[in-house]
Amino acid sequence: MTLQELLGVEFPIIQAPMAGSQGSELAIAVCNAGGLGSLPCAMLSLDAMQTELWAIRAKTDKPFNVNFFCHTTPEPDARREAVWRKLLQPYYEELGIAPGDAPAPSRAPFSAAAADRLESFKPAVVSFHFGLPAADLLKRVKGWGSKVLASATTVAEALWLERAGVDAIIAQGVEAGGHRGIFLSEDLTTQAGTFALLPQIVRAVRVPVIAAGGIADARGVAAALALGASGVQVGTSYLLCPEAKTGAVHRAALRSDRAAHTALTNLFSGRPARGVMNRLMQDLGPINTAAPAFPLAGGALAALRKKAESLGKDDFSSLWCGQNAGGCREIPAAALTRELMK
Amino acid sequence: MTLQELLGVEFPIIQAPMAGSQGSELAIAVCNAGGLGSLPCAMLSLDAMQTELWAIRAKTDKPFNVNFFCHTTPEPDARREAVWRKLLQPYYEELGIAPGDAPAPSRAPFSAAAADRLESFKPAVVSFHFGLPAADLLKRVKGWGSKVLASATTVAEALWLERAGVDAIIAQGVEAGGHRGIFLSEDLTTQAGTFALLPQIVRAVRVPVIAAGGIADARGVAAALALGASGVQVGTSYLLCPEAKTGAVHRAALRSDRAAHTALTNLFSGRPARGVMNRLMQDLGPINTAAPAFPLAGGALAALRKKAESLGKDDFSSLWCGQNAGGCREIPAAALTRELMK
Repeated sequence: MTLQELLGVEFPIIQAPMAGSQGSELAIAVCNAGGLGSLPCAMLSLDAMQTELWAIRAKTDKPFNVNFFCHTTPEPDARREAVWRKLLQPYYEELGIAPGDAPAPSRAPFSAAAADRLESFKPAVVSFHFGLPAADLLKRVKGWGSKVLASATTVAEALWLERAGVDAIIAQGVEAGGHRGIFLSEDLTTQAGTFALLPQIVRAVRVPVIAAGGIADARGVAAALALGASGVQVGTSYLLCPEAKTGAVHRAALRSDRAAHTALTNLFSGRPARGVMNRLMQDLGPINTAAPAFPLAGGALAALRKKAESLGKDDFSSLWCGQNAGGCREIPAAALTRELMK
Repeated sequence: MTLQELLGVEFPIIQAPMAGSQGSELAIAVCNAGGLGSLPCAMLSLDAMQTELWAIRAKTDKPFNVNFFCHTTPEPDARREAVWRKLLQPYYEELGIAPGDAPAPSRAPFSAAAADRLESFKPAVVSFHFGLPAADLLKRVKGWGSKVLASATTVAEALWLERAGVDAIIAQGVEAGGHRGIFLSEDLTTQAGTFALLPQIVRAVRVPVIAAGGIADARGVAAALALGASGVQVGTSYLLCPEAKTGAVHRAALRSDRAAHTALTNLFSGRPARGVMNRLMQDLGPINTAAPAFPLAGGALAALRKKAESLGKDDFSSLWCGQNAGGCREIPAAALTRELMK
């Protein structure tokens, strides 16, 4: 069975879920163009998720993907938080604000309550990042007929996901923007480029493999298929589409030469994610052990980010971006989706 | 003009020069199979280089590549050396040896003296790593007709090399084994995977681009060509060939599951290079600022390496390897070269 048959789509193109940078509008445009649009739910309340799912149902009858994070919510650690806030104190003083001046972003894992809301929609595809939910929850999702995808950043993770029963695996090369899906290790030296990771996962598992990381155009799609992928997941290239909700400073960074220099950073959420190098990453180093555990690191940054963005500065913003921003253009998502298959 | 025409070879396959792991024998086998064999000279005395060049001339009439490093030899720094030796002291004690118990490996940059010896051979191709030699030296090499290749690890480096007059650029993705060719920056976050780096360099320059990093088999070659490469450079896959001089503990690591976990490390030479994770890398962290400047870091390790290897241990050995060791097999280099084009 081809990936297109498995997912019920025309093209083997998945629009990568990008929490914070898109909602239903981008997903709908990609679905209606023949790809698999994705709704990222990690930063949505359950009510907001439901509203977005209704919007998708209203505007497309094509299959779509609903994406969730699967992290374990950490216990708050007052000492670590204090160290982190002390590190940020000079910035508060510089901007003349207090840490509580903006609400902290929340990132919730998939839960029974989310499954309750999702069930009536029975989306064709549900994808997970940072591993998989508990077995009973996964069973519910599969039970109502959704195909399940999940991200692997190593061969070991791919084998783990296959044993757990996923229908296809997203091989997330280190070029990819946003959060690394890494879940069996915390050692970033395990993270390989798409050219190395993809063929090794293809060889290791029987389920279809979807390539992610550095794929920005039709040549990238062809290369991924040549390496044995059954399809691709493309994120960064969609960030400038009018249907994306990418913020103003983020769009400006993507349009600039700065987009050529990204790094994996844990500063904005507590987990490693790839974004355009900015002031905070330069100042503290992109990986800093002082950052609180995911997703708590972002809390103390919220007020700084809000104030700096109001001044047109991206000093404290997560500018998620892969290592290949060469495909970023301000064209409709449908046109981009079709171009990827040319 | 195709890369094959530029280099005078049948296949657009360059066997990556791998100093310390191969000499003329591997280069000859690849040349006679239709690829471009390479002789790495960084760790050879001028006499040894000349002997190897005679050997190549005697056994093939095909074009071949002679490779040099282009670093600036650092001033010894007694304080830094002392810190480094102190860090290694527990290992000397454990193995019951003294730092001077083995000669330090030397890595010399391309020089006028090397050019004097090279001139009579007028190799079809000369490739450089860590930038390029001084303009007068480069002019000499081009003057006698050698085509010049050099490694770029960023778009900025590719543009720099093109302006300096190279005939083709090797885009070295972060997956690649051995030393990073990085020369305009010391910031490792600038290093991108092949899927991202290759198409960006292809778009930026007019000269042919050779893809390196993670290419292990015919699928990898096809993918690189799909991304716009004019050819590929393959290293790791040749390391188990009988014609390679890969050491015993290095071969054992490449044959094992451990080869799946590599990291960039500066411990063995002072410059970042990718190798299989081993004890020293685990103990000190793969990147440690205490390591002396390239190529001096290896000096204090030589005795540890020699003693440990005599015990069958690779604790202190540089186990250069890319992120995709999936192509490593004990087959003749000629067979591997032909398989890459299948």
